[in-house]
Amino acid sequence: MAGKKVLIVYAHQEPMSFNGSLKKVAVEELSKQGCAVTVSDLYTMNFEPRATRNDITGDKIKSTSEYYTILYSTANFIMCRKCQNQFSWILKEHCALSNPEIFRYGIETYEAYKKTALSSDILEEQRKVQEADLVIFQFPLYWFSVPAILKGWMDRVLCQGFAFDIPGFYDSGFLKGKLALLSLTTGGTAEMYTKAGLSGDFRYFLWPLQHGTLHFCGFKVLAPQISFGLDVSSEEERKVMLASWAQRLKGIWKEEPIHCTPSWYFQE
Amino acid sequence: MAGKKVLIVYAHQEPMSFNGSLKKVAVEELSKQGCAVTVSDLYTMNFEPRATRNDITGDKIKSTSEYYTILYSTANFIMCRKCQNQFSWILKEHCALSNPEIFRYGIETYEAYKKTALSSDILEEQRKVQEADLVIFQFPLYWFSVPAILKGWMDRVLCQGFAFDIPGFYDSGFLKGKLALLSLTTGGTAEMYTKAGLSGDFRYFLWPLQHGTLHFCGFKVLAPQISFGLDVSSEEERKVMLASWAQRLKGIWKEEPIHCTPSWYFQE
Repeated sequence: MAGKKVLIVYAHQEPMSFNGSLKKVAVEELSKQGCAVTVSDLYTMNFEPRATRNDITGDKIKSTSEYYTILYSTANFIMCRKCQNQFSWILKEHCALSNPEIFRYGIETYEAYKKTALSSDILEEQRKVQEADLVIFQFPLYWFSVPAILKGWMDRVLCQGFAFDIPGFYDSGFLKGKLALLSLTTGGTAEMYTKAGLSGDFRYFLWPLQHGTLHFCGFKVLAPQISFGLDVSSEEERKVMLASWAQRLKGIWKEEPIHCTPSWYFQE
Repeated sequence: MAGKKVLIVYAHQEPMSFNGSLKKVAVEELSKQGCAVTVSDLYTMNFEPRATRNDITGDKIKSTSEYYTILYSTANFIMCRKCQNQFSWILKEHCALSNPEIFRYGIETYEAYKKTALSSDILEEQRKVQEADLVIFQFPLYWFSVPAILKGWMDRVLCQGFAFDIPGFYDSGFLKGKLALLSLTTGGTAEMYTKAGLSGDFRYFLWPLQHGTLHFCGFKVLAPQISFGLDVSSEEERKVMLASWAQRLKGIWKEEPIHCTPSWYFQE
């Protein structure tokens, strides 16, 4: 739909992969509709998946032991002057954390979000999410979940303060009003991902991603687009999957979100 | 139990965290029993979570476009000599991949595993897993799952050929005979993680990890150790949780694994 903004968070190493083709089809179809499409190509960006102290800017201390080293090296100076203010000033110069002695990632990034002190790569992704009406995640299923590089995007970008607060989650999550859609590929066949299949119903593995993550942040979740059985599919079958994705995208803005409750996942 | 080998895969940034204490308690208790305990401290190791071409050694080409550049730069030479062998030799010198034109992570790491051509950090972790009788994963729950750095450990270490094959998965997975145990902490309370709670039964989010990953590789899965509600727990409650973990570890070698079927996760 003209004027709508779409963010595609894309996690595949290879542009010529089927995931690459699905991403390309989405960019083409949505652009044709007049949408503004942005792609975060995580591997090309070499996106950082690890949640560390580096995510808080202005912090020059990289470990607790280093903090103690600085404490120690300034100790004489403080004891000599008996000046607590001076002491605090020295620490603040070195450390932007609210608690430099015990690093708690969730608390520190929450504080840093409020002070716009998160690292620039996180801020940039948050800006893209904030602008988007629809976020599409395009990835191959790794161990019943997203690849680590995309898990890292979720861990780091969807921080408290930006995507949710306590209270302020699930239906009150801060990204309410936005749509999200998982488009994923599997090696295993559709038959394997049924209730009676070896890998269980595909909805089981969607729970942590769709409910625990996207719904928690307030997203309305559209039905997943699953391209099953890539390991055994023919060229012709792949063409059909690509075409059906393109076809679905034509009507994407008229779709109703799924009813994201346990019954959708476990009781049908 | 004396003589048993335990690997603890530990994913927390802060040694003084509750996760750090749980890890410490496990090392102490298991060592006291005479077990040989190894810890993979993923943040301290700065463990790489991204699944890329770098995981295959001997490959000097970092992207498909670079492959084409090399192809182009050698083209005159090949055309001039009309020497297909010479051409192949040049490419092999630059590229260790079985298909350098389209990079497929799963296929390439499978081939690299068979040739002992995986990167050294993966080989080292595989060696630790191979030696272990029990693997304990110690982590805080991030988005109903493991932190990205630990997801990356699973994505990269548990590759085809090492942990499973097709066929050769679930009860026939290559790590059969080994035990695995998830020890995790949550911010949310135990009440939130019940069937009637906002976040659903805790067993729902264990499915991709315990069934889709560990069981798939053949591990027998011991009951999870979940330390709930850290965000709201008192010092006293934390001490009780630590003590109960230590107590459980005393009898860990006599425990029966859970029956890792959908009914354990969804129907009790």
